[in-house]
Amino acid sequence: MSDHMPFTPTEVLLLGPGPSPVSPGVRAASIAPLLGHLDPEFLALMDRVQSNLRELFGTQNRFTVPISGTGSAGMEAMLVNLVEPGDRMVIGVNGVFGGRMAELARRLGADVVEVNAEFGQALDSQEVAAAIDGGPTRLVAVVHAETSTGVLQPLAGIAAAAKAADALFLLDCVTSLGGTPVDLDALGVDAAFSGTQKCLSVPPGLSPLSITQRALEKAASRSTPTPSWYLDVNLLGGYWGGDRVYHHTAPVSMIYGLAAGLEEALQEGMTARAARHRRVAAGLYKGLEAMGMSCLVDAELRTPMLTSVLVPEGLDEAEVRKRLRQDHCIEIGGGLGPLKGRVWRVGLMGHGARLESVQRLLSSLAAVLASMGRPCDIGPALDAARAAAG
Amino acid sequence: MSDHMPFTPTEVLLLGPGPSPVSPGVRAASIAPLLGHLDPEFLALMDRVQSNLRELFGTQNRFTVPISGTGSAGMEAMLVNLVEPGDRMVIGVNGVFGGRMAELARRLGADVVEVNAEFGQALDSQEVAAAIDGGPTRLVAVVHAETSTGVLQPLAGIAAAAKAADALFLLDCVTSLGGTPVDLDALGVDAAFSGTQKCLSVPPGLSPLSITQRALEKAASRSTPTPSWYLDVNLLGGYWGGDRVYHHTAPVSMIYGLAAGLEEALQEGMTARAARHRRVAAGLYKGLEAMGMSCLVDAELRTPMLTSVLVPEGLDEAEVRKRLRQDHCIEIGGGLGPLKGRVWRVGLMGHGARLESVQRLLSSLAAVLASMGRPCDIGPALDAARAAAG
Repeated sequence: MSDHMPFTPTEVLLLGPGPSPVSPGVRAASIAPLLGHLDPEFLALMDRVQSNLRELFGTQNRFTVPISGTGSAGMEAMLVNLVEPGDRMVIGVNGVFGGRMAELARRLGADVVEVNAEFGQALDSQEVAAAIDGGPTRLVAVVHAETSTGVLQPLAGIAAAAKAADALFLLDCVTSLGGTPVDLDALGVDAAFSGTQKCLSVPPGLSPLSITQRALEKAASRSTPTPSWYLDVNLLGGYWGGDRVYHHTAPVSMIYGLAAGLEEALQEGMTARAARHRRVAAGLYKGLEAMGMSCLVDAELRTPMLTSVLVPEGLDEAEVRKRLRQDHCIEIGGGLGPLKGRVWRVGLMGHGARLESVQRLLSSLAAVLASMGRPCDIGPALDAARAAAG
Repeated sequence: MSDHMPFTPTEVLLLGPGPSPVSPGVRAASIAPLLGHLDPEFLALMDRVQSNLRELFGTQNRFTVPISGTGSAGMEAMLVNLVEPGDRMVIGVNGVFGGRMAELARRLGADVVEVNAEFGQALDSQEVAAAIDGGPTRLVAVVHAETSTGVLQPLAGIAAAAKAADALFLLDCVTSLGGTPVDLDALGVDAAFSGTQKCLSVPPGLSPLSITQRALEKAASRSTPTPSWYLDVNLLGGYWGGDRVYHHTAPVSMIYGLAAGLEEALQEGMTARAARHRRVAAGLYKGLEAMGMSCLVDAELRTPMLTSVLVPEGLDEAEVRKRLRQDHCIEIGGGLGPLKGRVWRVGLMGHGARLESVQRLLSSLAAVLASMGRPCDIGPALDAARAAAG
């Protein structure tokens, strides 16, 4: 990097757990002339963003807005509004992000019941249901697509159990939204949050939220004040809703980018987009297989957008990532928590979910492995990838 | 606005309370190729941003970082970390943003003692000192430049009183940073927050914070958990500090923009930049005066970056703003709280603090007033503005 401005970063192909590559359309939109956050033209754009977010989330929820923080802020927004001290919460923990929800809920004084599964496994619906039945449960929370492992959680059983117990159902959609169908209303999800920097291919900084009227009413009838002003859904609703009451200065240019990203996603159509993510991921799986590598997660539980690749025995995995980045300008992620050192995390998200990404990654990985004394024949891997993704 | 993408907003001259006009350099920097938030090139840029922020804040504080939310998130970050239930806090309220701090502190269970002054007046240091002496005070908080009124608060007396009582001193620098000197260390400020969309002329979405070691130690030795995970300074320090521990995905492209904005500010130099803001504001004052208008705030208390202009008797002020926006593509702000309907708020901030802004505003305002049956001779106003700002 140059020590002087303007800062001219290397063009890195972002195939890690996020941020993902930004599309040209989103980039262009992000630097359109700035409007005031209460300008009529901007308010009209906000309406459009909300309507498009509803479509992508598969919901009629009136309260469907991007809040001014990253996905973690979205998680926090849901919990500070929906949880009060002493509330019993059942949280599925089969990865870092489920664990984060549990930590945050404990900070807020909730009575947290964790249902655990090994990193790389799905949660057992029966176990979650049993935990829900263990006491009066206010909220059930799970992660849809665990970015730390690559598991796509089956949701029907958990949703049914939450509904039967009249508990609110909270879903982390950070990595799923825009990459796989997220049908909030059909599933009976009461509250969901996402991020922009995964399958929407918009720079990080916003968190789309969607909340049912039922959950909003619970948030409005708390017995203790919401311990956040910035993330208070009652106040946020005033700005994004009909009254347009000034709350905080919305990050205008990021919302331009999000608006463009949502249009691109809906123009492609969620069915086609999800199929593309699955196809490209299948190319990765087959290519890796041809190179003698395998994935952490069982095939039927994998989320196409994020793949945990098992590091071959005896290999310095951090060195591989370093060489990919330095010599081939590709970013992939390392493992988190118990998976640290054991897996690489490869994201094929949004604009990055293309066969070219897989081909470039496989070729570069082969070159790096060869440079570390592990040569392999890349031809069959590329053929396999093309055949599976084509 | 077009109903279809790409969204092509009108080019509006932003002379309201923020966001302010973005400089071409900041715009260009914002769409540089996205790097991962743990990429070595990005980490080097983070170091540079921190170092430049320290210079602008006038501080050696190691913990000086932009957090991933707007200025209001910065306010919340300071309070959730530094305040515990039952803590006695003295808060100066002479505008909306002081009032917001008080509201938030009450949500967090603080024992809030408000020291009030009329909107448009400064706080009385003696009154603040007396309030501090009224009990063991954990935190004293005031707003440096009140965006809702345009008052620049004299700080020496309040800082001394906070120090004498061994209370932490918290300063809202949202509108002051980059427009007027902010010498945190010289003043003895323990914690400060700002925003990017005012005098740094960077799009809204980040909040620069600076905290002394002493305040960080108080935050680390709380008896109750920090009621936010996203804004926990202990966790944020791990990412921005030496260890680079993953916390949340930083808003990479916004940090590119901030980096460029900080370089521009420091290249100009804070002394020259502050003088420019004062000169241009003087042009506005003189031009308004020549048009028969006057300002809410006494001359010696005015902050140059934000001017509250008294609405001439009998005028529909909202209609004036509407015509300025629709017919002249200029945004100015209306009054908030008790000043609603009584003032316009004119921001001359960062890249917008130029004589051309003042000239265009005065000419357009004269045209709007004429269209509403109040013609005035604009020549003398433009001359007066040029003479004062030249």
